[in-house]
Amino acid sequence: MDRSYVIEKATAYIKEAQTYIKEKVNTEYGIDTKANKDDLVTDVDKSVEALFQQRINEEFPGHRLMGEEGSHENIHDLDGVVWILDPIDGTVNFVHMGTNFAISLGIFENGKPVYGVVLDVMNDEWFTAEAGQGAYLNGRKLQKLNPVPLEKALVSFNTGWMLKDEKLREVVRTVRGTRSYGSAAIELAYVAAGRLDAYISFHLAPWDIAGGCILIEETGGIATNYKGEPLDFLEKDTLFAANPAVYKELREALKITI
Amino acid sequence: MDRSYVIEKATAYIKEAQTYIKEKVNTEYGIDTKANKDDLVTDVDKSVEALFQQRINEEFPGHRLMGEEGSHENIHDLDGVVWILDPIDGTVNFVHMGTNFAISLGIFENGKPVYGVVLDVMNDEWFTAEAGQGAYLNGRKLQKLNPVPLEKALVSFNTGWMLKDEKLREVVRTVRGTRSYGSAAIELAYVAAGRLDAYISFHLAPWDIAGGCILIEETGGIATNYKGEPLDFLEKDTLFAANPAVYKELREALKITI
Repeated sequence: MDRSYVIEKATAYIKEAQTYIKEKVNTEYGIDTKANKDDLVTDVDKSVEALFQQRINEEFPGHRLMGEEGSHENIHDLDGVVWILDPIDGTVNFVHMGTNFAISLGIFENGKPVYGVVLDVMNDEWFTAEAGQGAYLNGRKLQKLNPVPLEKALVSFNTGWMLKDEKLREVVRTVRGTRSYGSAAIELAYVAAGRLDAYISFHLAPWDIAGGCILIEETGGIATNYKGEPLDFLEKDTLFAANPAVYKELREALKITI
Repeated sequence: MDRSYVIEKATAYIKEAQTYIKEKVNTEYGIDTKANKDDLVTDVDKSVEALFQQRINEEFPGHRLMGEEGSHENIHDLDGVVWILDPIDGTVNFVHMGTNFAISLGIFENGKPVYGVVLDVMNDEWFTAEAGQGAYLNGRKLQKLNPVPLEKALVSFNTGWMLKDEKLREVVRTVRGTRSYGSAAIELAYVAAGRLDAYISFHLAPWDIAGGCILIEETGGIATNYKGEPLDFLEKDTLFAANPAVYKELREALKITI
């Protein structure tokens, strides 16, 4: 595949989707009730996925799309070129806040990552990474991740998990702080950018993480499932993504063994 | 006091501070080590407070400034006009992320709120409220808060608190979701805007909350200390700020009695 042409087109489709979503949020979000906001996010999700499906069919008829809204149902392998898309990552934030959600896209060729994007739609932050070429935030190269000791780390996870795990409660006592932003894609992009040092989740789909995991690989972070196994981007799975030093220390603190 | 003139000038000073902070972050943040980032935030904090002190002395010699960086030490009452300023709210975010921090300003006249601003500096979100005139986000009027049932609420607090309070753990099981953004001012502004439905903290200073509490009052939210007593904006205190329906339900769920 002509990688730079694919990236150029992917960027154009995301910009088109961003413009559409921002307009929807700005014109329809404020005046609507909660029920209508639920409909709005469903509409926007479906429309953005349909936009990508149409553009890919026209421009790259041999490529396949795996998206949250139905198009994943026919994808059971990563042969050839597969675009893994979450049109709106952070649905609750979209409905409740009208901000702090992302478009997440990862493009894979024969199972290997080629290009990843996480766009924080309303805040206009583009996190992008081409395999082997590093990662960028709004065109500015992100540094490789420096080691961070666990007691200086910012760690992100769903607080519900603290209810079940005494070892995690101990970690919360150790780290510098915890955050929870409500969008897996944004939290992964933050790990890649060194804003967060770890992000852990127990139930994510390939489209939630495909874009972000490419970013993390390109800044030297580690992303596996909770057990430490490679992610396959075909099934729902757990996720453990972190700065490499924090990955090691945090797994020891949580007593995770493979 | 000439309220509209004071607001005009306050806005100008905040813009001046924002430009200065953005430039510092963009030129010095990326290349610096962690130690230098700690120095950077201290420098920026002090410089912004000094800027306000100088401008206020020149333009409003009768007004007083209560800021985080030293100028609060001489303020023991809210007589006359007092500007309550946090130059950088969300210091850890500033150091660790270079984003998701705020300038927070509340202007009080004889103890009564006159004007509040929370500026999410890097994301350019201006939350503003003039007493009796409603609150605005980037010039667009924020709606009065509608009732939200607790099970649909997004609630924000420091996760460390979950370690100590079984009732809170029960609340986490009940609500739609929890968030933690790492800036009290931004989280208060989010409550005012209906993005979050409650924000609770156990150790905040007047400058962390003065701007945000005026916003909350103007969209019909409630902000008290954890016990339910009025905030006095002179001492460090706990904080319980919420959508009015969530305030009531959440206090019942947490079994807080005054």
